Amino acid sequence: MRLSRILARKIKTSGYMPDLIVAIGRGGYVPGRLVSDFLLFNDLTSMKIEHYSRAADMQEEARIKFPIPVDITGKKILIIDDVTDTGETLHLAVDYLLNLKPESVRTAVLQHKICSNFTPDFYAQKVLKWRWIIYPWARYEDLAGFAEKIIQNRTLDISQIIVEFKQRYELDLKETELLKILDDLTERGELESTKQDKRKLWSLKQ
Amino acid sequence: MRLSRILARKIKTSGYMPDLIVAIGRGGYVPGRLVSDFLLFNDLTSMKIEHYSRAADMQEEARIKFPIPVDITGKKILIIDDVTDTGETLHLAVDYLLNLKPESVRTAVLQHKICSNFTPDFYAQKVLKWRWIIYPWARYEDLAGFAEKIIQNRTLDISQIIVEFKQRYELDLKETELLKILDDLTERGELESTKQDKRKLWSLKQ
Repeated sequence: MRLSRILARKIKTSGYMPDLIVAIGRGGYVPGRLVSDFLLFNDLTSMKIEHYSRAADMQEEARIKFPIPVDITGKKILIIDDVTDTGETLHLAVDYLLNLKPESVRTAVLQHKICSNFTPDFYAQKVLKWRWIIYPWARYEDLAGFAEKIIQNRTLDISQIIVEFKQRYELDLKETELLKILDDLTERGELESTKQDKRKLWSLKQ
Repeated sequence: MRLSRILARKIKTSGYMPDLIVAIGRGGYVPGRLVSDFLLFNDLTSMKIEHYSRAADMQEEARIKFPIPVDITGKKILIIDDVTDTGETLHLAVDYLLNLKPESVRTAVLQHKICSNFTPDFYAQKVLKWRWIIYPWARYEDLAGFAEKIIQNRTLDISQIIVEFKQRYELDLKETELLKILDDLTERGELESTKQDKRKLWSLKQ
């Protein structure tokens, strides 16, 4: 919220007045909505970029999953995302939109990791050292991913998993929050749970 | 956040597993993102519906401003918005999507006003009596709109405006927050401010 407000202010004082704001899915949905509120701006749309691993060389690649649904010829576009990580998302988004012949394209993110290979036109905060940032709107998914990474080929109980969350990711998790996630992953067939002397244990489902 | 979590849980326990979530712009962006996080769900897109007044009879109408950018033939769709107000938005969204021959369309909102003429399939909370609900992602714009309604054809200072916010809308506003909005509206040419005996006064710009 605070970062979105700062970002909106920077955009406003720059004098850049977009005709259309494009939120990058899914990370840009919340900042895109908040920034357009602070700018009293109506025309918000989205495009989805997804990341996948090329089997051949295990490199992460980005591609456009859902394009934008409107003609932007001659328009001033502002792209909003949560963070510049590798920078690949914004590179791709800008290239794609420039092909559609807008008047201009600018980019804005809440947090810009300076190790990214893309420098956005606007950012609310600079992040000097690469680190994984958990945003409230992606917390559940990030924690689920971390839990699976922690468990790997082991069988662990909840307190062991909590300890590793702290050690590996410096995250203090409450048992209730983690339990929901573990149960959810079990229900989805990604984990399986067993009981041993009243201890509940989790492992990845084979 | 809490309502999105409840909503996600209801969708999950219903057994409805969408192929695509469509957030209604702009109100559905934040709940759409949060619900897809809690569902560990990837394929989120958006469509924008706008409301306008028909000059002829001053009736509010809704129309699709930005359609969805993907083929949904045979797909299971879940529409997410913040609230059912008149219900017109969801009526329109469902009609539009059904025309695109999906397998099914379901609707989900955080808060369902029971006076609405549309009943969504899922809602986190029922609102029994019609009232205006301010969501964090629309607060700035809602307050700006209220401020203009309060001022109307009068010339008021900030404490008078604050009093009316309280009286008319039961909102306790801080001077700093309101001042930002008034300054912003002045900069946008919607208000004008004058000074009288060191008091700053606002009126609608003619």
